[in-house]
Amino acid sequence: MFYLIGLGLGDAKDITVKGLEIVKKCDRVYLEAYTSILTIGKENLEEFYGRKLLVADRELVENNADIILENADKEDIAFLVVGDPFGATTHTDLVLRLQQQKIKFQVIHNASIINAVGCCGLQLYSFGEIVSIPLWTETWQPDSFYDKILGNYKRNLHTLCLLDIKVKEPTLDSIVKKTKFYMPPKFMSVSEAADQLLQILEKKQSLSDQELTLTHSSLVVGLARIGANDQEICICSLSKMRKIDLGLPLHCLVIPGNSLHPLESEFLLQYAVDDKELQLLKH
Amino acid sequence: MFYLIGLGLGDAKDITVKGLEIVKKCDRVYLEAYTSILTIGKENLEEFYGRKLLVADRELVENNADIILENADKEDIAFLVVGDPFGATTHTDLVLRLQQQKIKFQVIHNASIINAVGCCGLQLYSFGEIVSIPLWTETWQPDSFYDKILGNYKRNLHTLCLLDIKVKEPTLDSIVKKTKFYMPPKFMSVSEAADQLLQILEKKQSLSDQELTLTHSSLVVGLARIGANDQEICICSLSKMRKIDLGLPLHCLVIPGNSLHPLESEFLLQYAVDDKELQLLKH
Repeated sequence: MFYLIGLGLGDAKDITVKGLEIVKKCDRVYLEAYTSILTIGKENLEEFYGRKLLVADRELVENNADIILENADKEDIAFLVVGDPFGATTHTDLVLRLQQQKIKFQVIHNASIINAVGCCGLQLYSFGEIVSIPLWTETWQPDSFYDKILGNYKRNLHTLCLLDIKVKEPTLDSIVKKTKFYMPPKFMSVSEAADQLLQILEKKQSLSDQELTLTHSSLVVGLARIGANDQEICICSLSKMRKIDLGLPLHCLVIPGNSLHPLESEFLLQYAVDDKELQLLKH
Repeated sequence: MFYLIGLGLGDAKDITVKGLEIVKKCDRVYLEAYTSILTIGKENLEEFYGRKLLVADRELVENNADIILENADKEDIAFLVVGDPFGATTHTDLVLRLQQQKIKFQVIHNASIINAVGCCGLQLYSFGEIVSIPLWTETWQPDSFYDKILGNYKRNLHTLCLLDIKVKEPTLDSIVKKTKFYMPPKFMSVSEAADQLLQILEKKQSLSDQELTLTHSSLVVGLARIGANDQEICICSLSKMRKIDLGLPLHCLVIPGNSLHPLESEFLLQYAVDDKELQLLKH
């Protein structure tokens, strides 16, 4: 049997009771370590489970999944994913392989940022399409995510922006060589996301003078380490968010819709970093 | 300290390890029992936790929250919610009261249908706004949810439709009397939801002849008891869904966007109830 087990968002104890029982009895346990991270490390998980974990990086999951699935028809194998197992496309792909090979599997769900984001007080029913914001390089600066955010905003829907994670990505240079060199891990912060959004606003400004659009003073919500004991939430203008440091990863950014429900405004007020900006929330 | 604890979706063991530890140590433990239900009963939860639970119905939570919060500054009180604590507006309201009364609180997240719906193979990144479908009566047949579904569909986004739950609702007749009488609990099924959607389509047909719209033959996904051992998923045309019986609650319905990613179609194929309809998925 193959088990896909969500670990939730905080620490080792955010696994479900059912999930923990399975981890303890399995023959092999993989920890998926590139679509997300827990704020605690692999060692802490190993200590809590009382067993060794095998790290499953992008290369193993996407190019050598057969190693993970080996003997899954005879043995019990667990595949641990931060958040919920269906948060990333790559896990759907793994399930398809299981089905093709007629290997039995079970999914143990858990919280992911997609539902836990409700803790900022914005109603989950009022979120539109989720967007991913990629970390720009000097030569690669895509901005199609902005149109999705604006589309949600105009329809009065909030946007959850997932921020780029780069773990064990080969350097451009090394891809052509036989031995791969990897870039250091990099987790995009709310300030980097705000900075990229502001750059897009500057570029598009002339086009959208007459339209309902985001501006430098639009209020946005920054979230860090949701589900962990030291989680942080703050609300301020987009231009202020550029200077906010929410500390260690993972971060995400929420762009609220054009008008808020009174219950949402009231809830968000507690996270405001600037009294003057609060007034904007009250209308 | 006041704890809001998500129970997840399946059975007693879907609580997190952290959540279970808290339940065991609290002075009082409430089970919220009107915005959702677990497929297992209160007695099973009590047996697993080794303690009694207090049922929190709509009246208690919305009109007498002070009883729940009593002594929360001195004692440890847990409030258990099926799914994740921020799935329903009413819990956000409870958190606001905690803040107003300066009572410390902690949230233990868990899976909810909002992220677990990913198990049907449709990518969570491609879902638009969530809609709630209310159960019609003879005299009350609102259909504004249809426009939201159509809006998502046209933008190529999937719609998660949460289906109506009526637990401990007073009868119309009894509201004016001193003693309230309650209607029997009622959980909307995928076939009832499909039936209401078809009735809306018939009404709107003449208006939308030229437009991209849903039809009787649009493929929809029915889901029942997601996260439980006996979960069921099926995909078929809207008109066929009207006749599908997925058994015990809770059900939800997904209306996929106008075109699917190949990985999504491939995944959905396994749940198709009719070979001929499969062909529609392949384009």
